[in-house]
Amino acid sequence: MCVWARRSRNLVRVTTTISFARGAPSLDIIDVEGLRAAADTAFTSDPGGLTGYGTSIGYPPLREWIAERHQVDPRRVLVTNGSMQADAFLFDALVGRGDSVIVERPTYDRTLLALRNRGADVRMVELETDGIDVAALERVLSAGAKPKLAHIIPNFQNPAGYTLSAAKRERLIELARAHDFTIFEDDPYVSLRFEGSPLATMLSMDGETVVYASSFSKTVCPGIRVGYLVGPEELIARVAKIATSTYISPSMVSQGIVYQFCRSGALEHSIETVREALRERAEALCGALASELPDARFVTPEGGYFLWIELPRGVDVNALFQAAAARGVQFVKGSDFVLDGAESSLRLAYSGVTPAEIEAGVKRLAEAYADISSAVPAG
Amino acid sequence: MCVWARRSRNLVRVTTTISFARGAPSLDIIDVEGLRAAADTAFTSDPGGLTGYGTSIGYPPLREWIAERHQVDPRRVLVTNGSMQADAFLFDALVGRGDSVIVERPTYDRTLLALRNRGADVRMVELETDGIDVAALERVLSAGAKPKLAHIIPNFQNPAGYTLSAAKRERLIELARAHDFTIFEDDPYVSLRFEGSPLATMLSMDGETVVYASSFSKTVCPGIRVGYLVGPEELIARVAKIATSTYISPSMVSQGIVYQFCRSGALEHSIETVREALRERAEALCGALASELPDARFVTPEGGYFLWIELPRGVDVNALFQAAAARGVQFVKGSDFVLDGAESSLRLAYSGVTPAEIEAGVKRLAEAYADISSAVPAG
Repeated sequence: MCVWARRSRNLVRVTTTISFARGAPSLDIIDVEGLRAAADTAFTSDPGGLTGYGTSIGYPPLREWIAERHQVDPRRVLVTNGSMQADAFLFDALVGRGDSVIVERPTYDRTLLALRNRGADVRMVELETDGIDVAALERVLSAGAKPKLAHIIPNFQNPAGYTLSAAKRERLIELARAHDFTIFEDDPYVSLRFEGSPLATMLSMDGETVVYASSFSKTVCPGIRVGYLVGPEELIARVAKIATSTYISPSMVSQGIVYQFCRSGALEHSIETVREALRERAEALCGALASELPDARFVTPEGGYFLWIELPRGVDVNALFQAAAARGVQFVKGSDFVLDGAESSLRLAYSGVTPAEIEAGVKRLAEAYADISSAVPAG
Repeated sequence: MCVWARRSRNLVRVTTTISFARGAPSLDIIDVEGLRAAADTAFTSDPGGLTGYGTSIGYPPLREWIAERHQVDPRRVLVTNGSMQADAFLFDALVGRGDSVIVERPTYDRTLLALRNRGADVRMVELETDGIDVAALERVLSAGAKPKLAHIIPNFQNPAGYTLSAAKRERLIELARAHDFTIFEDDPYVSLRFEGSPLATMLSMDGETVVYASSFSKTVCPGIRVGYLVGPEELIARVAKIATSTYISPSMVSQGIVYQFCRSGALEHSIETVREALRERAEALCGALASELPDARFVTPEGGYFLWIELPRGVDVNALFQAAAARGVQFVKGSDFVLDGAESSLRLAYSGVTPAEIEAGVKRLAEAYADISSAVPAG
C-alpha cells in the first residue's frame, strides 16, 4: 500500500517506505521536553554567554564539561558545529594535497569524500570484525607508506558496526609512535553500547599521538549540531585559528542548551533511552534477518546504529537496491563506503526504525532478494 | 580605577576598560525574553524539524521566510552558521588561488584575511563617503584586471560606516555585467538605518550578477549564528554541496528559534530597540568627538555600528593605540582594514557601549591623543 504525493515537482512515495538508509535516530527516542527545559534554563541563567559573540573554542562551560569527561585540560578541547565540521578543520590543519591518509575499509562515506576533496592519497586497510587489520597496516607501513593520519572509528563503526579490540588499540598506538603519524579517533557512537564492557579510548592511552572527535548528535540530537575535538594543545590552538576565520564560532545557543542538558542529568537519561531502543532494534533486526534472509552474513552489534551485511559472492547489490526500492525499503550499498569493491555488501541502519518497521522492512528486503535471485540476467 | 584579575595565566584588566573595538551589540539591547519564548515555541511546534538532521540549505520554514523577504524563489536561499561562513562557502565556490578579487579600501579585516588565505589577488579600491570609487574601479578594469568577484558592504560599511549611493549601485552592476564579474553584496547592517531612506539592494536590481549575504547577528543576536546567502539557483546548489560535505547543516535549533522570533513579530520589535539605541549612541559619539577631539574628521553615520576617524596626516595611530590602552580605552587601528597605509585612521564601534560610556571613553581617547601629541618622538 503506497501513498503518492507531489513534492517539489517530483512524484515521491511517502509514509510507507521503510528506510534503513539514514544513520539518524527516530524522534520518539529524543528528549524534546528535556531540550525545551534546557533552552529555558540556558537563556535565563547565562543570557550574555548565549547571545553574545563567542569564540571558536566553543561555549566555555561546555568546553570545561567535556574536558572533565575526558580528564584533560580544557585548552585541549574545541567545540564545533557538529563533528563533521571537526573532521574538516582537522583535515585542513593536518592533511595537504598528496598526503597519505589511512582509513578503514569500509569507512564512513563522508570522511572518504572529505579526504578525496582535499586531494589526499587515501589508503584503505581492511576492517576485521575486531577492528582494522593491524598486520595489514603494518605491511603498508613497512612498504614505505608515510601517512600523516589514520582515521579510525573505534566503536560500533560506521558502516560495519564492528568494535576495535583493546589489543588492537594498543598496537595502533605503537605503530603511530614508530611511524610518526596521528591517530584520528572518531568516536560518535561510544556512549551507545548496549552489551559488553566499554573499552578505554585511545585518547586516554596517548594524548599526544591521538586526536579525538565526538558529538552530541547521537546522545542529544543531530539538529543541535554540537561536536568536538580533543587533541594536543598546540594543534587545538591551530584548529581554533582556522575555525575563527571560517565562522567565528559555532552556535552559542546550541551549546548553551547542550550544556544545561548535560548538567541537569537529562543527558544520562537520554543515553539510557537511546541505548534501550537501539538494543531492541538491533535484536529485532538480527532476529528478522536470521529467519527471513538466511544468506545474510553479519556480526550482531554490541552498540551503535549499524549492521553490515555480506551476501554471497556474486550477488549484485545494485540490483538488490533497485528491487528493494520497488518494494519500499531503502538501505545504503556497501560500495559507497569503499574506493572499489564491496558489490555484495550493504549497510542497514536500525536507529530510525521501530521493531515493527524492522520486521516489515526485512520481509520486503527478503522479497527483493528473492526477486533478483530468480531474475534472468539481462543482455 | 582599575580592577585586575587573573585569567588564563595572564593578568588582564577587567570591568573598567571602555571598548570601542568589537562590533557587537551590548546585552541590554538583545531581546533575551523573546528568544527564550521563541525557543519554547520552536521545540513545541516542530520538534522533528529542530532535532533531526537538517540539510545544508537550512531550516525550510526560515529559508522560505528569508526568500519572501527578498522576493525570490526559496531555492535561491541557503542558511549558514553565521554570515562569515556564507562568505567562506562562496569564496570556496568562486575564488581560486591567484584569482583577482576587488574589495573596498578599507574593508572588514576578516574578509581580507579569508581572501588572502585562499591565495586570492586582492585589489583594494578606495572607499569614498558615498561608497566605492567607481571611477577608480573602472580604471582598474580598463587596465586589464579580470576580477572574479567584487566584495561590497553597501550599508554602513565595516569599518567606515559609509553607505553606497543609489547611482553607484547602478554603475557597479553595469561594470559587473560589462566585465563579467560577480558582485558580492555583503549586507549585515541593512536593517539598522536610523536616519534617511533605505536604498534598493543590488540583489533586487540584478539577481544574476549579484550574490547577497546577510545575517541575524545584528537584529537578533550574534551567538545564535544564523546568516544566509541569496544567489542564482545554480550557484546556491553548488554552495549547498560544499556545505553538506563540510558540516551537513547549520544548527537547526538556532534556525528554528530565529524563525519563531521572526514569525512572532519579535524581530521587528528587536530591530526598533537596536536602531533606537544605535541612534542615541552614534549621536553621543559624534557630539563627544566634536567637543573633545576636534582634530578627528568623520562622517556622521546614518546607521550601523561603526564610525571611521581620520586624524591629521602624520599622527601615529599605533602610538595612540598604546596610549589609549594605558588610559583604559580600546579601538581598532585603521591599518587593520587595509593592505598598507591608513596609519592615521581608526575605527570606533559604538554598538557595545552606552552613551555614558561613550562620553567617558572619548574623554580618555582625547587625553591619549594629547599624550602622544606632546610626547617627544623616541630615538
